[in-house]
Amino acid sequence: MPIATKGAVKTLSSADIERLGSPILLSNTYHLYLRPGIDVLKSFGGLHKFMSWDGALLTDSGGYQVFSLAKMRKIKEEGAEFASHIDGSRHLLTPELSMQIQQTIGSDIVMVLDECTPAGSTKEYLVDSLARTVRWAERCKIEFEKGKAASNNPGAQLFGIVQGGTDIELRTKHAEALKAIGFDGYAVGGLAVGEPFEESCATVEALDDVLPSNAPRYFMGGAQPGQIVEYVKRGIDMFDCVLPTRNARHGLLYRFVHDDLNRPDFYETIHLTNERFKESKEPLVGATLAVARAGARPAPTEMADIVSQELSRYSLGYIRHLFSVEEILAQRLVTLANVRFYLELMRRIREGIEVEKV
Amino acid sequence: MPIATKGAVKTLSSADIERLGSPILLSNTYHLYLRPGIDVLKSFGGLHKFMSWDGALLTDSGGYQVFSLAKMRKIKEEGAEFASHIDGSRHLLTPELSMQIQQTIGSDIVMVLDECTPAGSTKEYLVDSLARTVRWAERCKIEFEKGKAASNNPGAQLFGIVQGGTDIELRTKHAEALKAIGFDGYAVGGLAVGEPFEESCATVEALDDVLPSNAPRYFMGGAQPGQIVEYVKRGIDMFDCVLPTRNARHGLLYRFVHDDLNRPDFYETIHLTNERFKESKEPLVGATLAVARAGARPAPTEMADIVSQELSRYSLGYIRHLFSVEEILAQRLVTLANVRFYLELMRRIREGIEVEKV
Repeated sequence: MPIATKGAVKTLSSADIERLGSPILLSNTYHLYLRPGIDVLKSFGGLHKFMSWDGALLTDSGGYQVFSLAKMRKIKEEGAEFASHIDGSRHLLTPELSMQIQQTIGSDIVMVLDECTPAGSTKEYLVDSLARTVRWAERCKIEFEKGKAASNNPGAQLFGIVQGGTDIELRTKHAEALKAIGFDGYAVGGLAVGEPFEESCATVEALDDVLPSNAPRYFMGGAQPGQIVEYVKRGIDMFDCVLPTRNARHGLLYRFVHDDLNRPDFYETIHLTNERFKESKEPLVGATLAVARAGARPAPTEMADIVSQELSRYSLGYIRHLFSVEEILAQRLVTLANVRFYLELMRRIREGIEVEKV
Repeated sequence: MPIATKGAVKTLSSADIERLGSPILLSNTYHLYLRPGIDVLKSFGGLHKFMSWDGALLTDSGGYQVFSLAKMRKIKEEGAEFASHIDGSRHLLTPELSMQIQQTIGSDIVMVLDECTPAGSTKEYLVDSLARTVRWAERCKIEFEKGKAASNNPGAQLFGIVQGGTDIELRTKHAEALKAIGFDGYAVGGLAVGEPFEESCATVEALDDVLPSNAPRYFMGGAQPGQIVEYVKRGIDMFDCVLPTRNARHGLLYRFVHDDLNRPDFYETIHLTNERFKESKEPLVGATLAVARAGARPAPTEMADIVSQELSRYSLGYIRHLFSVEEILAQRLVTLANVRFYLELMRRIREGIEVEKV
């Protein structure tokens, strides 16, 4: 899921995302609650209409941003009290308010309010936090059902979020508690927050047998392409990731090197701001990608879509120039290329699963 | 002509400009000479290939930027000596070098090197400057012809630039001197630099009978929509203008109010950052434009092109939100809308001239 934090994927329009072929976007309860605010979203009938997006929307609950962005925060049984990072104004984000905001946004997938515990939390803290997160999840479910009919999206789904750090026992227990409440899908939160990749992999793997197999599973937080492949092997279906867009704005391009996604070097990243691309005629995206150079057959969608066709027109040398003279266009073109890469990665993974099934 | 100063119209790609339907772009000799530099442009075979642009390119000579941007400048008979605004490096821009750079860029329309005299220059200064500008124009013509065959664009045209402030006598004399040398087209420079609009109008009008009627005439420098209409009435064919793009980045939208371009209020500008647009559902571009609201028939190209169709999806309220949360997308969408407005303005003016002819 490309990330449209404040109602737009940075540098891209809703029409751009359609052209890229993403069926879903992630947006952010905390940010939208502060700006444009609930009144504006109500007036427009929700975020879909506000940003002219017909695809699906998932919104996080606002919990993560309260913990990472807000100037002041205090977790109480009632909810999370915080001061806005914009103007310092005080707010109390309760499970109920989070549901109300997300139902005003009209999200297709609503996330419960949880506390994302930092890596290295003590077991004592975790146990305490998890118990509260379960109670919050129950309150979310009640409020979600209550507000459903009158919301901007009566067909919305509610996802629970499994926390518990890298403690397998706590994770399992928490997942069981959420299952008992019953959600449409389950997210694994609180990973990719500083712990070693192996530990987060083991945690995801341990949950594979605990979570219901007929409900979608969503890994919350940044993941490099190789990590995504590993998480999918361990049962994950959905990802959100700020890496393709944020890195693009700093000139980092993702591209495929090998067709075999099991090779750790199936992709590479290159820094387009580098002097060595000054005279490079290689296209930003296109037939001369490393995969094609290596003599392998081009992937089926290679060059098939209109975005790739446009991106194949611009050379790495031109993009490097645009970065050097600080043209915003550089950020936009590499963002398009990277989002396309991540969507293509997911497509290839799905294709691989289909092939295995046959 | 939309302005692609450093090889890109700010926030837009070459494909965007194609979709907008502009047949020509303006780019900048001074900027491209400093970055990416002549070696890179040579390596790519010119700016068309570098930026993937199949339309026409006009480049200014670099003279104006030497006078407005460079840290230090000294005008000598040989050329204009200056220190780069980027790194302070010293350069001597001669008429010959300006031709060589523009021929490496591969411009379709090459401009002679001139001195753009500031508003309020004394007659003595003007006379001296104009004499040198004529000598520079002669040297440009010789160098242009010499380098044509081996250049990146052997079919290029060379335009002279009429200077002389608002002194009609000096202007006329200068225009005659340029005609004697012989150019493919003639620009009127040194206006829109601070003098009253009436004076620059009178200057353009005085040149109408002096300049050859079968050669294109190009007004250099910013012009508001209403001023463009007045200049066209006085014989001007071409404009470059930074206003639609620069103003867009600050949230200023141009739009039509009346079909009759002779009315001074045929267009309006609105500040999209204004609080009053917070809940506005009015589309950025589209069928609910003021012209349509007033009951007049929509213009023929209204909604016809793909860019307008996309821009009609986004409300003023959404754009205001994007500006308030500092999303680059806001700048891009308003840039598209404003360039479209200026191109549509020129189309309507041309249409008006066609109707008059019949």
